[in-house]
Amino acid sequence: MVARTVDLRSDTVTKPTEAMRAAMANAEVDDDVLSHDPSALRLETEMAKVTGKEAALFVPSGTMGNLVSVLVHCNIRGSEVILGNNCHIHIFENGGISTIGGVHPRTVKNNDDGTMDIDLIEAAIRDPRGEIVFPTTRLICLENTQANCGGRCLSAEYTDKVGELAKKHGLKLHIDGARIFNASIALGVPVHRLLQAADSASVCLSKGLGAPVGSVIVGSKSFIAKARILRKTLGGGMRQVGILCAADLVALHENVLKLEDDHKKAKMLAEGLNQIKGLRLNVAAVETNIIFFDIVEGAKITAEKLCKNLEHHGILVMQESPVRIRVVLHHQISESDVQYALSCFKQALSGRVQEENGN
Amino acid sequence: MVARTVDLRSDTVTKPTEAMRAAMANAEVDDDVLSHDPSALRLETEMAKVTGKEAALFVPSGTMGNLVSVLVHCNIRGSEVILGNNCHIHIFENGGISTIGGVHPRTVKNNDDGTMDIDLIEAAIRDPRGEIVFPTTRLICLENTQANCGGRCLSAEYTDKVGELAKKHGLKLHIDGARIFNASIALGVPVHRLLQAADSASVCLSKGLGAPVGSVIVGSKSFIAKARILRKTLGGGMRQVGILCAADLVALHENVLKLEDDHKKAKMLAEGLNQIKGLRLNVAAVETNIIFFDIVEGAKITAEKLCKNLEHHGILVMQESPVRIRVVLHHQISESDVQYALSCFKQALSGRVQEENGN
Amino acid sequence: MVARTVDLRSDTVTKPTEAMRAAMANAEVDDDVLSHDPSALRLETEMAKVTGKEAALFVPSGTMGNLVSVLVHCNIRGSEVILGNNCHIHIFENGGISTIGGVHPRTVKNNDDGTMDIDLIEAAIRDPRGEIVFPTTRLICLENTQANCGGRCLSAEYTDKVGELAKKHGLKLHIDGARIFNASIALGVPVHRLLQAADSASVCLSKGLGAPVGSVIVGSKSFIAKARILRKTLGGGMRQVGILCAADLVALHENVLKLEDDHKKAKMLAEGLNQIKGLRLNVAAVETNIIFFDIVEGAKITAEKLCKNLEHHGILVMQESPVRIRVVLHHQISESDVQYALSCFKQALSGRVQEENGN
Amino acid sequence: MVARTVDLRSDTVTKPTEAMRAAMANAEVDDDVLSHDPSALRLETEMAKVTGKEAALFVPSGTMGNLVSVLVHCNIRGSEVILGNNCHIHIFENGGISTIGGVHPRTVKNNDDGTMDIDLIEAAIRDPRGEIVFPTTRLICLENTQANCGGRCLSAEYTDKVGELAKKHGLKLHIDGARIFNASIALGVPVHRLLQAADSASVCLSKGLGAPVGSVIVGSKSFIAKARILRKTLGGGMRQVGILCAADLVALHENVLKLEDDHKKAKMLAEGLNQIKGLRLNVAAVETNIIFFDIVEGAKITAEKLCKNLEHHGILVMQESPVRIRVVLHHQISESDVQYALSCFKQALSGRVQEENGN
Repeated sequence: MVARTVDLRSDTVTKPTEAMRAAMANAEVDDDVLSHDPSALRLETEMAKVTGKEAALFVPSGTMGNLVSVLVHCNIRGSEVILGNNCHIHIFENGGISTIGGVHPRTVKNNDDGTMDIDLIEAAIRDPRGEIVFPTTRLICLENTQANCGGRCLSAEYTDKVGELAKKHGLKLHIDGARIFNASIALGVPVHRLLQAADSASVCLSKGLGAPVGSVIVGSKSFIAKARILRKTLGGGMRQVGILCAADLVALHENVLKLEDDHKKAKMLAEGLNQIKGLRLNVAAVETNIIFFDIVEGAKITAEKLCKNLEHHGILVMQESPVRIRVVLHHQISESDVQYALSCFKQALSGRVQEENGN
Repeated sequence: MVARTVDLRSDTVTKPTEAMRAAMANAEVDDDVLSHDPSALRLETEMAKVTGKEAALFVPSGTMGNLVSVLVHCNIRGSEVILGNNCHIHIFENGGISTIGGVHPRTVKNNDDGTMDIDLIEAAIRDPRGEIVFPTTRLICLENTQANCGGRCLSAEYTDKVGELAKKHGLKLHIDGARIFNASIALGVPVHRLLQAADSASVCLSKGLGAPVGSVIVGSKSFIAKARILRKTLGGGMRQVGILCAADLVALHENVLKLEDDHKKAKMLAEGLNQIKGLRLNVAAVETNIIFFDIVEGAKITAEKLCKNLEHHGILVMQESPVRIRVVLHHQISESDVQYALSCFKQALSGRVQEENGN
Repeated sequence: MVARTVDLRSDTVTKPTEAMRAAMANAEVDDDVLSHDPSALRLETEMAKVTGKEAALFVPSGTMGNLVSVLVHCNIRGSEVILGNNCHIHIFENGGISTIGGVHPRTVKNNDDGTMDIDLIEAAIRDPRGEIVFPTTRLICLENTQANCGGRCLSAEYTDKVGELAKKHGLKLHIDGARIFNASIALGVPVHRLLQAADSASVCLSKGLGAPVGSVIVGSKSFIAKARILRKTLGGGMRQVGILCAADLVALHENVLKLEDDHKKAKMLAEGLNQIKGLRLNVAAVETNIIFFDIVEGAKITAEKLCKNLEHHGILVMQESPVRIRVVLHHQISESDVQYALSCFKQALSGRVQEENGN
Repeated sequence: MVARTVDLRSDTVTKPTEAMRAAMANAEVDDDVLSHDPSALRLETEMAKVTGKEAALFVPSGTMGNLVSVLVHCNIRGSEVILGNNCHIHIFENGGISTIGGVHPRTVKNNDDGTMDIDLIEAAIRDPRGEIVFPTTRLICLENTQANCGGRCLSAEYTDKVGELAKKHGLKLHIDGARIFNASIALGVPVHRLLQAADSASVCLSKGLGAPVGSVIVGSKSFIAKARILRKTLGGGMRQVGILCAADLVALHENVLKLEDDHKKAKMLAEGLNQIKGLRLNVAAVETNIIFFDIVEGAKITAEKLCKNLEHHGILVMQESPVRIRVVLHHQISESDVQYALSCFKQALSGRVQEENGN
C-alpha cells in the first residue's frame, strides 16, 4: 500500500465536497424529461447568465455537450466542421461527430498557444461554388483553454476575430469551454466576454470546479430547443437529474475563485519539474492547471516506466506519448501534495521506488 | 392552485426517498471514466447477478441503454433489427438507432399481449442468399413488459422460443427490460429467468423502482466492453457517477417488492375507470402498472379536453391519441390517491371542474 | 445445353435493341460532371416534360434514384419516412436509406392492390408536439406500379389523396415510379397525371422500356440541384454518360407503347399458369407485366425444386419464398415464348426434365 | 464564337474514340445485377490481372470506387482512416466517407511530392489502449499519382514502406489509383508492382485512358464480394453495363502507352508557362500530366480574371485558388494545341482578348 496518493491524472478526479453532498441530499427535483426539474432549471438559468447566452441545457458530459452542439449546428447531411488538429473533439471524443453524426471534420493546425492561424482557418472554408465536390462548411470550433496544447488560454480578441470570420462566411462558432473558467481566471476576463463571439459553448462543472458530474451547453433559445431533442436521442435525457445539478450549482458558487490557486500550484509544480534533470518543459507556457513535460533524450527512462515508478509512490499521472506526460492540478491537491509529488518525481526518475514503509 | 396532485403520467416521476438521499450523500465515488467508480461497480456487479449475466454497465437512461445495445449488436454497416411495431425503441426513442446508428428497423406486428408471432418474426429474417439487395438481420428486440401494449408481460417460455429462433439464425436477442421487474413480480418468475434467452438487456431503475436516474445494460463481458466505449462516444460516460448508482442500489434493495402493490392499485384503478360511463378498457389486460383506456364513441369529450379537465383537478395523465389516455401507477401513489383520482375522473368527464377551494 | 431460353426473372434482363446500339455509337457527349453532357441534358429535359416536373437528373439505377430522393427530402438529421411494408425501398434496397442515410423508416401495411390505407398513413405521421421522443416525419413514399404486390397500379385519384394528406401535414411525397409507364399504359392515364401530386419521382428506363442502364429522378429545380450534389457524393456522377442517355432516349421514344403487349402476354401467361394443377394465382390481379403465383399445398414440389426444374428447360424465374415464384414479361418475350414457357411449367411441375435433344 | 477550343480542365473531358464507340455498339451484355455481364466480367478479370489482385469490380466513378473501398475496410462503426490532407478523398469527394459512411478521417500533411512522412503516419495511428476515447484506426489511404500535389508519383519503395507500417499495426492500405497508369508510365514500373503493398485500389479508366465512364476497384475476393453489396446499396449496380465496360477495355488496350506523350506535352507546356512573365511553377515537379502554376505577386491579374480571359481564347483551365490554376493534359490535346494554348496564355495575361473574327 502506498503511503499517500496524489492523483494528478486529471481535474475530473475530484471528490464532491461536503457542501455538494448536502446540496444533493436536499435537492428539489422533478422529472426533467416530462417537465422541467427545478434544480436543473436553476442551473441552466444561472449558466445562461454567466455565459451571456439566452439559454442553457444540462448534459451528462463534456463529450455529449460537444457532440450535441456540433450536430445541432451541422444538422444537414453533408456538413463540414473546421477544428484544431489537436483539439479534444478531434482527438479524444471517439470521432463521434463523424461516426455517430456523419459530420466531416477539416482540421487546421493548432499552434503551441492553442490558436489556429486566422488565414489558415479561412483557407479551409469551402468555396460554396464548389458544392458539387465539397462538403458545406457550417461550423468552426475553438477550445478554451486548449487542453492538449497545455491548457493555453485563447484571448477575447482572438476569439472575436474567429467570430468575425465565421459571420463573414455565414458559419457558426462553437467553443469547447470545458475549462473556460480557468481561462477566465487566468486572463482576468469574464466568461461571458470570452464567449461573446460564440453561437454556442459547452462548459464543464466536473473538471476544475469539482462537481461530480455535469456539463452545460449554452446558446440561443432555438439552439437549445434543438439540443434538448438531440440530447434525448443520444440518451442523455435524465429524470430527477436535479440531484446532480444541485452539486453543479455549489461548484459554480464556491469553486471558481479556487482555480487561481490551481494555477499557482501548477506553476510551482512546473518550475519544480523543470529543475529535475531528465525532464523538460516550457514553464512560461503553463497558464492554467495543465502541465505537459517531456523526458529529455538520453534520460535512460521511458515515459511508461516513469509512470509506473510514480505509481509505486502513489503519484498518478497520464502518459501522453512515449516521451510525454501530463499532470493536472485541482482544488483537492494541496501545496504539500505538490512538494511531495516533486520529491517522488526525483526518486522515480532515478529508478528508486519508494520504500513502502517510508515517506 | 389545485388542492392535491396525483401524477399518473409515468412511473418516472417518482421522487427519491429519504434512504436514497442518504445513500447519495454518503456514496463512495471515483472517476468512472478514468478508473471505476466503486458505487457504480457495486451496482453493476449486483445487476449482473440479478439478471444472470456476466457483466453490466450503468447508463444515464433507458434510451441510451437500448441505443448502445442495438448499436453494439449491429456494429457492422448494413445491419437490420427486427422489432415490434409498437415497441418503445421504434416509437419513442427518436428513431435513434437509424438516425444516429444507421441501423435499419424491420417491424413485426405486436399483438395485444405484447408478443409478436414467432412465424412472423421468422418470415422477417432476411435470407442471407439475398444479401445483394437485403440488409443483414443481426438482432431481434423484445420489450418486457411491453409498455405501449399496456404493460403486458412476456413469459419466459415465449422469450425462450424467440431466443431459439435467434440462435437458429445466428442472431442476437436484446430485451428492453425497462420494466422487467414488473414482469418478474407479475409472473412470479425471477428476472434472470425472464432474461435467460437474451444476449443483452437494458433494465431501468428510475421507473417503478423509484431511483432518480439510471438504467443498466447487461450481457457478456465482451458485449459490455464494447458498450462502455460506445457509451463514451455518445457522451454517457460520467465522472463521480456513484452518486446516482448509490440511489439505484437502494431502489433495487427496497422497492422491488413494492411493485406488487403498484399492480394491485393499477387493477383497482382500472376497474374503477371501466365503471365510469364514457370510458372503456380491458381490465383483464392490466397485468402490471400501466393502464390504457379509451373514450367511447359518443362520449362528447375528446381525450385532450378530458386531460385538461383532469389537470384542473390536479390529476396528471398522458394523452396517447385523440381517444386514448395512459395512466401509470408507482409506489408514491397511494390507494387513497387512486380513489381520489377516480372521483376526479367522474367529474372531469362530466365537464365539471373542481372548485379551487374544495377538496 | 438448353434448346431455348426464356428469361422471365425480371424486365431488367432485356438486351439493347439495334436502334439503341446505333444511338450509343453516335451519341453526342461531354463531361457531365464538369459541364453538362448534351445527351444527358436532352434526356433530362424530355423526362421533365413527360413527368410534368421542372427538372430531371439521370442516375445509374433506380436504387440510387430512390436513395437520392429520400435523402434530399430528409436532409435533416432525425427524419422519418412513411412507406409501404412491402415496397421496394424497404425490402430490396439494402436498407440504404437508414444504413447510408440515417433516415428512420416507418412502415404502413401495403394492401393487396398496392395501396396503403389513407387513415393508417395519417396515423403514422408523428405529432410534432411529441418531438422530444419522436423523429420528424418528412416524407411519404408510394410505389407505382407496386412491384412486390404483383405490379399493381395506383390510380391518380389515390395518389392525389395521399398528396393532399402530405400537404396537410407539411410533408413531401416521393413516388418510386420504376414502372410508372406500365401504370400509365394499364390505366390509360398519362405519366404526368399519375405523378401530379408528387414532389419527386424516380422513373426507370432499363426495366420494361428496355434501355441497358438508367433511371431518372424528377422534381423541382431546387430538388434536382440538391440531388445532383448527392449523386456526386454517392459516386453516381459519371463523365461522358450521354452514351447511356442516348439509349434511354430510344427506349423512351420506341418502347412505351410496347408495354401494352407485355401486359397482354402477362395476362395470357397468368391464365395459363392458373390452369396448371398445383399452381394458384389471382388472374384478375395481374394488371401489368408482373405475376406472382403460389404452389398449392399438397403439390409435392417446393418453389426451389420447381425453379431448378424450370432452369433445366431454359425457363428462368425468380423464387420469392418457399411457395411463391415471380415471373415478369418484357418486349423481348414473344407470345410463342409464353406458350413454350407454359408447356415447360407443366413438365417441370410433374418433375419431368426436358430431354436435351428435344424440340 | 471562339476559333478553337483547348480543354485543359481535366483528363476526364476526353471524348470516346471510334474504336470505343464500335466496341460499345457491339458489346456483349447481360444483367450485371442478376447475373454477371460478360463484358463487365472481362474487364474485371483483366483489371485484376493488370493490378495483381484476386478480383475486381466495375464502379461508375472514382468517387464511388474510393467510397466503397473505404467503407468496406471500415465497415465497423467507430473506424478512423488516415489519409493525406491534400488527397482527393479528403478534399474533392464531398466528405462522403463521413457524411455517408460515418468514418472519421485523420489527416497527415502531404509533402510537395505527394508523400506523407512515415513517422507522421505512425504517430497518427491510434493506440488501441486508448479505445475508450479514440476511434479505431483501420485504414491508411495513399493516392498515386497524388493529383492535388501536381500529379506526383509515389514510388514502389515508398508504398511498400507504408504497407509494412499498415501490416505492423494490423491496418489495411487502400490506394486511390485514379491515375496509377500515369505513375506506372512515368516511373517505368508496372501497375501491379506499384499496388503490391495495397489491400485495395481504385483505378480510373475515364481519366487519361480516355474511356467515357468507369473505374474499377481491385482487391481480395472477399473484399470485392463485400464491395459488390455496397455498390448496390449506393445505387451503383447497373444492368447491361457491359456497354461501358467494352469501351473501358479499349481504353486499357489502346491508350496506356499514350500517357507517355501526355507527360511530354505536360513538360513542354510547363516549360512554356514558366517562361511567361507573371507565372511561376516548378517544372521539375511536373512528373505526369498535371500542372499547377501560380500567378506571381505583382502580376496585376487574378487567377479568376486570367481564367476568364483564357476562356475568351477557347482555353479552358481550372482555377484552384485566388492565385493558382491547374491544367491537365490528355491524348486529345496535340502538341499544336499546347503551342496554341501557350500563345493564348501570353495574350490572356496581358489582358488582350483574342479578336473574335481572327483565327
